Amino acid sequence: MTDIFKDIESEVQSYARAFPVIFDRAQGAYLYDTDDKAYLDFLAGAGTLNYGHNNPVLKKALLEYIERDGIAHGLDMHTSAKEEFLTNLNELIFKPRDLNYMVQFTGPTGTNAVEAALKIARNVTGRHNIVAFTNGFHGVSLGAMAATGNSHHRDASGIPLGGVTHVPYSNYMGEELDTVKLLENLLEDSSSGLDKPAAVILETIQGEGGLNVASNEWLRAIEKLCRKHEIILIVDDIQAGCGRSGNFFSFEESGIKPDLVTLSKSLSGYGLPFAVTLIKPEYDTWKPGEHNGTFRGNNHAFVTANAALKEYWSDDTFEKDVQKKIAHLTTRLKKIAGKYDKKLIKQKGRGFMQGLECRDGDLAGKICKYSFSKSLVIETSGADSQVVKCLCPLIITMEELDKGLDILEEAVAHTFQKELSIAS
Amino acid sequence: MTDIFKDIESEVQSYARAFPVIFDRAQGAYLYDTDDKAYLDFLAGAGTLNYGHNNPVLKKALLEYIERDGIAHGLDMHTSAKEEFLTNLNELIFKPRDLNYMVQFTGPTGTNAVEAALKIARNVTGRHNIVAFTNGFHGVSLGAMAATGNSHHRDASGIPLGGVTHVPYSNYMGEELDTVKLLENLLEDSSSGLDKPAAVILETIQGEGGLNVASNEWLRAIEKLCRKHEIILIVDDIQAGCGRSGNFFSFEESGIKPDLVTLSKSLSGYGLPFAVTLIKPEYDTWKPGEHNGTFRGNNHAFVTANAALKEYWSDDTFEKDVQKKIAHLTTRLKKIAGKYDKKLIKQKGRGFMQGLECRDGDLAGKICKYSFSKSLVIETSGADSQVVKCLCPLIITMEELDKGLDILEEAVAHTFQKELSIAS
Amino acid sequence: MTDIFKDIESEVQSYARAFPVIFDRAQGAYLYDTDDKAYLDFLAGAGTLNYGHNNPVLKKALLEYIERDGIAHGLDMHTSAKEEFLTNLNELIFKPRDLNYMVQFTGPTGTNAVEAALKIARNVTGRHNIVAFTNGFHGVSLGAMAATGNSHHRDASGIPLGGVTHVPYSNYMGEELDTVKLLENLLEDSSSGLDKPAAVILETIQGEGGLNVASNEWLRAIEKLCRKHEIILIVDDIQAGCGRSGNFFSFEESGIKPDLVTLSKSLSGYGLPFAVTLIKPEYDTWKPGEHNGTFRGNNHAFVTANAALKEYWSDDTFEKDVQKKIAHLTTRLKKIAGKYDKKLIKQKGRGFMQGLECRDGDLAGKICKYSFSKSLVIETSGADSQVVKCLCPLIITMEELDKGLDILEEAVAHTFQKELSIAS
Amino acid sequence: MTDIFKDIESEVQSYARAFPVIFDRAQGAYLYDTDDKAYLDFLAGAGTLNYGHNNPVLKKALLEYIERDGIAHGLDMHTSAKEEFLTNLNELIFKPRDLNYMVQFTGPTGTNAVEAALKIARNVTGRHNIVAFTNGFHGVSLGAMAATGNSHHRDASGIPLGGVTHVPYSNYMGEELDTVKLLENLLEDSSSGLDKPAAVILETIQGEGGLNVASNEWLRAIEKLCRKHEIILIVDDIQAGCGRSGNFFSFEESGIKPDLVTLSKSLSGYGLPFAVTLIKPEYDTWKPGEHNGTFRGNNHAFVTANAALKEYWSDDTFEKDVQKKIAHLTTRLKKIAGKYDKKLIKQKGRGFMQGLECRDGDLAGKICKYSFSKSLVIETSGADSQVVKCLCPLIITMEELDKGLDILEEAVAHTFQKELSIAS
Repeated sequence: MTDIFKDIESEVQSYARAFPVIFDRAQGAYLYDTDDKAYLDFLAGAGTLNYGHNNPVLKKALLEYIERDGIAHGLDMHTSAKEEFLTNLNELIFKPRDLNYMVQFTGPTGTNAVEAALKIARNVTGRHNIVAFTNGFHGVSLGAMAATGNSHHRDASGIPLGGVTHVPYSNYMGEELDTVKLLENLLEDSSSGLDKPAAVILETIQGEGGLNVASNEWLRAIEKLCRKHEIILIVDDIQAGCGRSGNFFSFEESGIKPDLVTLSKSLSGYGLPFAVTLIKPEYDTWKPGEHNGTFRGNNHAFVTANAALKEYWSDDTFEKDVQKKIAHLTTRLKKIAGKYDKKLIKQKGRGFMQGLECRDGDLAGKICKYSFSKSLVIETSGADSQVVKCLCPLIITMEELDKGLDILEEAVAHTFQKELSIAS
Repeated sequence: MTDIFKDIESEVQSYARAFPVIFDRAQGAYLYDTDDKAYLDFLAGAGTLNYGHNNPVLKKALLEYIERDGIAHGLDMHTSAKEEFLTNLNELIFKPRDLNYMVQFTGPTGTNAVEAALKIARNVTGRHNIVAFTNGFHGVSLGAMAATGNSHHRDASGIPLGGVTHVPYSNYMGEELDTVKLLENLLEDSSSGLDKPAAVILETIQGEGGLNVASNEWLRAIEKLCRKHEIILIVDDIQAGCGRSGNFFSFEESGIKPDLVTLSKSLSGYGLPFAVTLIKPEYDTWKPGEHNGTFRGNNHAFVTANAALKEYWSDDTFEKDVQKKIAHLTTRLKKIAGKYDKKLIKQKGRGFMQGLECRDGDLAGKICKYSFSKSLVIETSGADSQVVKCLCPLIITMEELDKGLDILEEAVAHTFQKELSIAS
Repeated sequence: MTDIFKDIESEVQSYARAFPVIFDRAQGAYLYDTDDKAYLDFLAGAGTLNYGHNNPVLKKALLEYIERDGIAHGLDMHTSAKEEFLTNLNELIFKPRDLNYMVQFTGPTGTNAVEAALKIARNVTGRHNIVAFTNGFHGVSLGAMAATGNSHHRDASGIPLGGVTHVPYSNYMGEELDTVKLLENLLEDSSSGLDKPAAVILETIQGEGGLNVASNEWLRAIEKLCRKHEIILIVDDIQAGCGRSGNFFSFEESGIKPDLVTLSKSLSGYGLPFAVTLIKPEYDTWKPGEHNGTFRGNNHAFVTANAALKEYWSDDTFEKDVQKKIAHLTTRLKKIAGKYDKKLIKQKGRGFMQGLECRDGDLAGKICKYSFSKSLVIETSGADSQVVKCLCPLIITMEELDKGLDILEEAVAHTFQKELSIAS
Repeated sequence: MTDIFKDIESEVQSYARAFPVIFDRAQGAYLYDTDDKAYLDFLAGAGTLNYGHNNPVLKKALLEYIERDGIAHGLDMHTSAKEEFLTNLNELIFKPRDLNYMVQFTGPTGTNAVEAALKIARNVTGRHNIVAFTNGFHGVSLGAMAATGNSHHRDASGIPLGGVTHVPYSNYMGEELDTVKLLENLLEDSSSGLDKPAAVILETIQGEGGLNVASNEWLRAIEKLCRKHEIILIVDDIQAGCGRSGNFFSFEESGIKPDLVTLSKSLSGYGLPFAVTLIKPEYDTWKPGEHNGTFRGNNHAFVTANAALKEYWSDDTFEKDVQKKIAHLTTRLKKIAGKYDKKLIKQKGRGFMQGLECRDGDLAGKICKYSFSKSLVIETSGADSQVVKCLCPLIITMEELDKGLDILEEAVAHTFQKELSIAS
């Protein structure tokens, strides 16, 4: 093994430290290193590989497209690949859900889709402020980072971040505080110091924030508050979207209809960079090219996205199958956690964004480390990295899911046994 | 033809308006629409397709990689594709040029690489201000946009942009003003109002800004000034890099050695999203994961980038061939412009970032429109869209180059004849 | 009467609209207009005339000083007037209260003292963020305004205000929410989006905000939280200080010891512009002249301030007398309000910052208007101007106090009778 | 002598360090310390005492006013003192100069008048950016400080200053650069990075900046540029106004008519805190109380200001007398400087804002120090404190002026003799 990563790759690398091997190939729920050792993948590109690694259906479409010299890079020009993607997005996703959005192809990263959404909201309303929530994560380019709560990222900006007010998320103070009511008070008190916002931006399930879940009731109350005050509602569905919640959009269950939606991560389905901002037609006030970016026409991603839409979203078969697996995941996680004191560990999250919240990040880190020693790739999230999260591919088989959870269960047992005996 | 683009694609679309066809496939210097009509491409993905569309060498490597289920999406984990890319970047690019950089894989867009560079500079120096130049373009996410001069993009931000001071670029006031001396005065006058900057960021050739060229003397003077005041020098080589100037890095000719370099656009060589920030080792002070992003491990791009490095940069054959074509381009552009009054049109730019500066954007737009009617894809840039730019693929043949220039020559003649007869 | 005020005084005028007469002279608790009509003053220069208009003791000292050509304007030079003021401030105020502060003579306005305090806090800690509270008022120059909650003032800035996070004040959500606990959670949650603040700035009684009172328990909890997190605690005592709370400093009752204190308004005692920022010695890290201002040596103000200190603060006679009047004020306000439904009107505030909170600003405005028709000058405050506030001079006699309260009582009765009969 | 200044006055003190005595009283052009030693005052409260210390005419008016219990503090209420001031300002200043302004009584500091002016400009135009100039000084509250060039003050803010673009002042690069043309280019180049400004703010003579003088031609060109681009023109006449230039307003000579003018310093004439913002009627769009401040009704200042207007500005006698003294000052300063190499020392400035620019701050400081040893109070300004400035009271007699200049001449000779002999 060469030392090139040490020699010339920046210190900013992160996951590479947790999984100190060189991966070479991947299939479905498995990664293989250069020694062809297999690792079960409960990280799935941080939620980017909902359909698994190198999904054969998508792969076939992509290979054919490349073989026939289909446009690879198209700026924002019309291409047949984009045409097909838009048509299927409209027919298979928007129409059945009674949604009506204009699609903006932003730079192919989630943070860029968020930047675009914030611009639209500010321009449409003529207001500068944005309300975001505690523990929200929306990206690390300067505009999106202002809406991100994580101080590890915020502090790296080297300049104060402005234009965003963070308020407590659903259930932030537990039963004590109705956080929508607090926001309502701040909005309706003309001396609260909260500048009337252009938009409220939220994740329905906070992935990086530690698998915090907004209740449907809370989401509906936020939507109502936004309507009352003519504030634009943005759902950042970059991680929770594309099926991970159990539906295509994570907000479907609540019945809300956001004004703007950001999608990325699993949108291409193959792990290819891709992001869009969905805009209610009345807010699509962009002037040509106002927000641009070289790679907003990543046609390979259109091709795989299109294949994924047709394969998985033509009817509700996939959705139902995923929901079954989610239910199983919930049951097992509760069972694993149930063996221990609630203060030590508990099940958390919704959909395929569930995991185990531990007392502290140290415990969670040890569980992940042990899991990796048993060939399970799994990571933490949360302000203190205290939540072990199962971001499995949605196409994982029940057997693979159980296999991973068995390892996780063992890792928990091993870690707690060791830690608790030391502590006592 | 369907109306799906009108129906559900956002109004933000831009190039699609100039080239109202649906492109389907592409090869080398040619794009083909859905009717299989061929278009010679003098836009090349706005400088992203230096090696042409679907370059066969890169295509072969990519197909093989996909076929064998090579990792597509790897977050920032070590993969064999990344290992090979880093090794070749080091051996074929850095070492022969006596450069020593750490490589940060940022989100795969130029704007994200710029955001990362600005963060590093601010954190290393503890200063917040950045000096950028008139007509500079560095992206449209909020941090990078602050450094971008274009008001069309700036005004779309919906919030004041801060942390950047724009100063006049090389030759901004013609002979009248030594712009380095002005910057020096501002830096050395403690009451100038210029907060001491963390960094100076510049393009050696301003692409979007209208093909403005910094002289080598000016670049060296800027570097010297940065050294004297311990200011970090960032060269944004997103458009001018990867060979477009005639060398791999556009600053090679001047002999300067920037502290940070951003690369993107043609880095993957196949039009796939990819960006890096190169960092002098002493400034690589990142903490793990401080700047992150889902798609910073776009392995398909590593594979094609790697193939491109090996094919075109193992020796200086390609470089010399490109320089020959550049010389030819210069000659012909000067000849085309030479037929008319200098106030109407003149050759401008350097390397494969040359074009024709017209009296106004209206003339330039008409030239491009006429060219497209003759199946040449070509675009304008500059504050008033007054510069017709030839961003040909570097692998264009001499025949194709002449074919395109013949059309351009005809377009100029046609436009001027029509316009000038109207005017007189 | 001339129309010069209409002709050439700006539309920004405010109190002049509520009291449309021309005042000419004043004595004690009385203002006299140009027709020599007397008005009882329950506004007292918005808390600036604690010792009454043209207090004879202060007047004598000032006349003598002017007569003998004492320095009027001294920049920040040492003068005998300043020397005497500093000595008395130290002997009569700081030492008996076991306080130890350095005195900064800022520009002679409260907003300037706040600007100075925020600068110190930011420079000492190297952090940029400031925590301020809902309904706080700290001035309208840009730095202080960012800490002010009132949108009427904030919106006039014409530029987004940054560097301050507003959090709920004591009792903001009633019993439902422990607002110190919320702040604690935000501070200790590294992903809350609250950038660690340099300082917390607060008023112990919010004057402009509507006579909201922080409990002593809350103040102590805030101080404790600041100590724990090494955050500087600033008490803005501009309105509540100089005896208005019943003690010299409004925070004495709670026992907290702020790191920085701003004083202005009644500091000169004669209504002359004067402001200081008190700084714990360890935080007095100013470099010479870093914060300056032409009028920071307003020696007339030093002279009257000095006379006031000697006359009123040499022992606790004045303090006790004021407290007796405050008790009487409370009793009467409760009695006045007690005749009506609590939802319509209730007593509010502490010290000589008490008043009557009405259901809405319309009612409160009518009460004040009626009062003025009976020659009582009284004003509202609060987000909706819903609080009628009694900012009497502290030297008011019991008879004058009762006379004013009689008018107020009548005004309430008159207004409610009229309004409620209309409503029913 | 007590140590109270050391014990409890903040380290921020500045002039007190240069003049380490305690001043007690003052008359005309003389300060007297506690030992009754006289000092000739060439600082005059940094331009605040144009009519001298304790001017007998103003003193008489003030004493009478205080004696008769005239309103001292009036918030923004109408008072007879304010009425008289407004009337005289209109009759004696505005009308004879064909000026038409609304008068805003801001907080009684220059910085507050500037804050108000910037707010108006931003609100009227809906733009956020302000163009200010190199070496400009407009105050140190956050909004005004953003427009101030001095890094000593800027760096003390502890937070990046935004919303202002600094451009080179008249003659900043000498003959090389037409700075109006540069500004014009930046304004008319839509990609310059200069956000279209709400206003241009300038001093006609930069006091703190080092007695830099804008030519009348330059002022007219700036005014023309502002008109062309519908940009509000603000003249900050805080130091140069009230006669110091030789006219009441410093811009009279150029013939320009600013949209907004700030006045303070010598406006009260007695050194009392006072400031106004003059607003062309069409821009007086303030809502009641949007910009407020406790001390905006400092009636003592109205009284002395009024006395000064009547005494000195009822006809042109005073103006002509001042101009004669200015001419004498120029002659003598040129003569003093003329004895030495131009690189060492030269006359600089205009009106009673003239002085001697030295090679460096060290020389200038020594000249001032020596002067003080000979009982002349005189100070430096400029980015490097390299300019010795003669800010004499305008009422200085020719004899006093010569006496001071004699000391200055001796100080220069003494300093140069010593320094140059050391150097050689």
